[in-house]
Amino acid sequence: MHFNLLSKGDGILMIKTIEFKDEKLYLLDQRKIPIETEFFVCKTFQDVDFAIKDMAVRGAPAIGVAAAYGVVLAAGQFMKCDKQEFINRMHEACEVLYNSRPTAVNLMWAVKRMRKVLDDNLSLETRQIYERLKEEADEIFKEDFALNKKIAEFGNTIVPQKASILTHCNTGALATTGYGTALGVVREAFYSGKDIIVYADETRPRLQGARLTAWELVQEGIPSKLIVDSAAATLIRDGKIDLVLVGADRIALNGDTANKIGTFMLSVVAKAYGVPFYIAAPTSTIDFDIESGKEIKIEERSAEEVTHISGVRIAPEGIDVYNPAFDVTPGENITGIITEKGILTKPYRENILKLKPKSIQKS
Amino acid sequence: MHFNLLSKGDGILMIKTIEFKDEKLYLLDQRKIPIETEFFVCKTFQDVDFAIKDMAVRGAPAIGVAAAYGVVLAAGQFMKCDKQEFINRMHEACEVLYNSRPTAVNLMWAVKRMRKVLDDNLSLETRQIYERLKEEADEIFKEDFALNKKIAEFGNTIVPQKASILTHCNTGALATTGYGTALGVVREAFYSGKDIIVYADETRPRLQGARLTAWELVQEGIPSKLIVDSAAATLIRDGKIDLVLVGADRIALNGDTANKIGTFMLSVVAKAYGVPFYIAAPTSTIDFDIESGKEIKIEERSAEEVTHISGVRIAPEGIDVYNPAFDVTPGENITGIITEKGILTKPYRENILKLKPKSIQKS
Repeated sequence: MHFNLLSKGDGILMIKTIEFKDEKLYLLDQRKIPIETEFFVCKTFQDVDFAIKDMAVRGAPAIGVAAAYGVVLAAGQFMKCDKQEFINRMHEACEVLYNSRPTAVNLMWAVKRMRKVLDDNLSLETRQIYERLKEEADEIFKEDFALNKKIAEFGNTIVPQKASILTHCNTGALATTGYGTALGVVREAFYSGKDIIVYADETRPRLQGARLTAWELVQEGIPSKLIVDSAAATLIRDGKIDLVLVGADRIALNGDTANKIGTFMLSVVAKAYGVPFYIAAPTSTIDFDIESGKEIKIEERSAEEVTHISGVRIAPEGIDVYNPAFDVTPGENITGIITEKGILTKPYRENILKLKPKSIQKS
Repeated sequence: MHFNLLSKGDGILMIKTIEFKDEKLYLLDQRKIPIETEFFVCKTFQDVDFAIKDMAVRGAPAIGVAAAYGVVLAAGQFMKCDKQEFINRMHEACEVLYNSRPTAVNLMWAVKRMRKVLDDNLSLETRQIYERLKEEADEIFKEDFALNKKIAEFGNTIVPQKASILTHCNTGALATTGYGTALGVVREAFYSGKDIIVYADETRPRLQGARLTAWELVQEGIPSKLIVDSAAATLIRDGKIDLVLVGADRIALNGDTANKIGTFMLSVVAKAYGVPFYIAAPTSTIDFDIESGKEIKIEERSAEEVTHISGVRIAPEGIDVYNPAFDVTPGENITGIITEKGILTKPYRENILKLKPKSIQKS
């Protein structure tokens, strides 16, 4: 099996992270970058559930696409069952995938969308349902790339000709089907000829900045510096950051945004020193069912993510750990939310509600 | 050679970190905790210079004591030289030790104090000068422990009966000759029967919180949770932290305080959410020669501290790194500075100048 890690698309370098081929889902294994570039191969929806939980695939948009293909894999697994069992098993599979991680709304959005296609086509043969689901997942995949490009173009309008950009976690090609959200804006700025430098937070505990964002930046030759998360504050205060650009896992109607742990801290410092703070995310990240961040359940992950790095113990046996994966940045700290439909600004509730799609069912 | 890692002193558990014995300096090797407890043995002042640079010994007060014994070791090395060469070599050794790390003022303070003893006793035999230097280093050692206990007692007056305390880096027994500064306050609160819990920032890049503070807390059974640095902000906002207690490497006349990278970030968030933010440090940390933090040179350390953990590469080859070891927290963000002479509050310049010792020469 051969993969072009870097392929030219639209005149820019693209990192291929997700591919559905020969009835299998290939995920560029994000647990191994930057040391190795290997693909994690999913043959069943359970493999996808594991890949999401263990973060072989991560990044809200990428998780959504992976889960959509997880539904396709489930349809393949249960294709030979009689119709009622097929339906039961498919609903179970959707439930498992829907709950594979608690915070990312794109995941729920993608599974809901797949489930709707399933439910709308129950009169068809299981093989035909499989095909319909496959088309829908491919559509979600394609839409994601197109959305990212749109986000990048809107985002680039707020990037100065010469800009120092702080980013957190990984919001790049690895977090999406390619290009990226916040890092997509950085790419767009860079490839449009702007003089930019990126400060990339390493993003403890899982080091997505050090491992993934730094890898993407080095691959594409975008000027950048890696910093520990807590070094960002002094850079912001000292005028060395022109804007902060981060992604999102879930956005409430009032603009409150769940994103990787550490995002909220950056927003407080950026606000204190008057530095613009932008979220870049597709509108599928908006949870129209929740009024504010108070309703967002924050995933707590295992102590080992903090006490061990690459399998090496760094903290003493017996120490308790509090390891929230995300935090919620209040809408009031956010200068704007860059989406594929434009840049949302305050008042968020009013402006977000204008985007509410009619077709997505309420949970 | 046998060491009691934990010895009862004043009815409390103490971790022995520095010992001068048989004309050698034994330093509990802080690069190896919590995995191993080994001593780094210094036979020469060059060994001490290396131990400070490579952070086998760290923590501003501990570095000061180690450097003082470094001057003693130098006197042993050059004892057989003729007087003029002894003096020249001793001045060179003092210079090397003085510059072994750029930010910690206790280091400079301790070396200046040793140099004064040297210069005041040049008429004596080199063996007698060695003895005088040894007495002075022992005195600095003893004073440090006594100072810490005083800091802890003053500090404990501002700790509520039930308190959740956030701390950063390691300011405990390992950073001093025992007991600690900010962590000494925690110890005092705990041993005086208060109901406390400590949130310990892991403190990237060198993980002094995860490796050292967590180790001390586990050793002594003090209730605690380890967090990644950027998780502190949400805890502060959500009312889960009653006070922030950190150490210092250098304090300017206006209260501006250089401390481990990340301290400034905590101060901004604490200020934004009205949580008391205290520095705990001996008055030897005050640099009476500088008006503000603008005059503090911030040590930048190697990229490898960020790109590798325990020798394992975590970031891609070719990524640039910005790795400042410290940051400067403005005096205005600091609720109080807990010293062995009491708790300093605003206006800092006025209150700090009252403490200026007459005996310390200007640099």
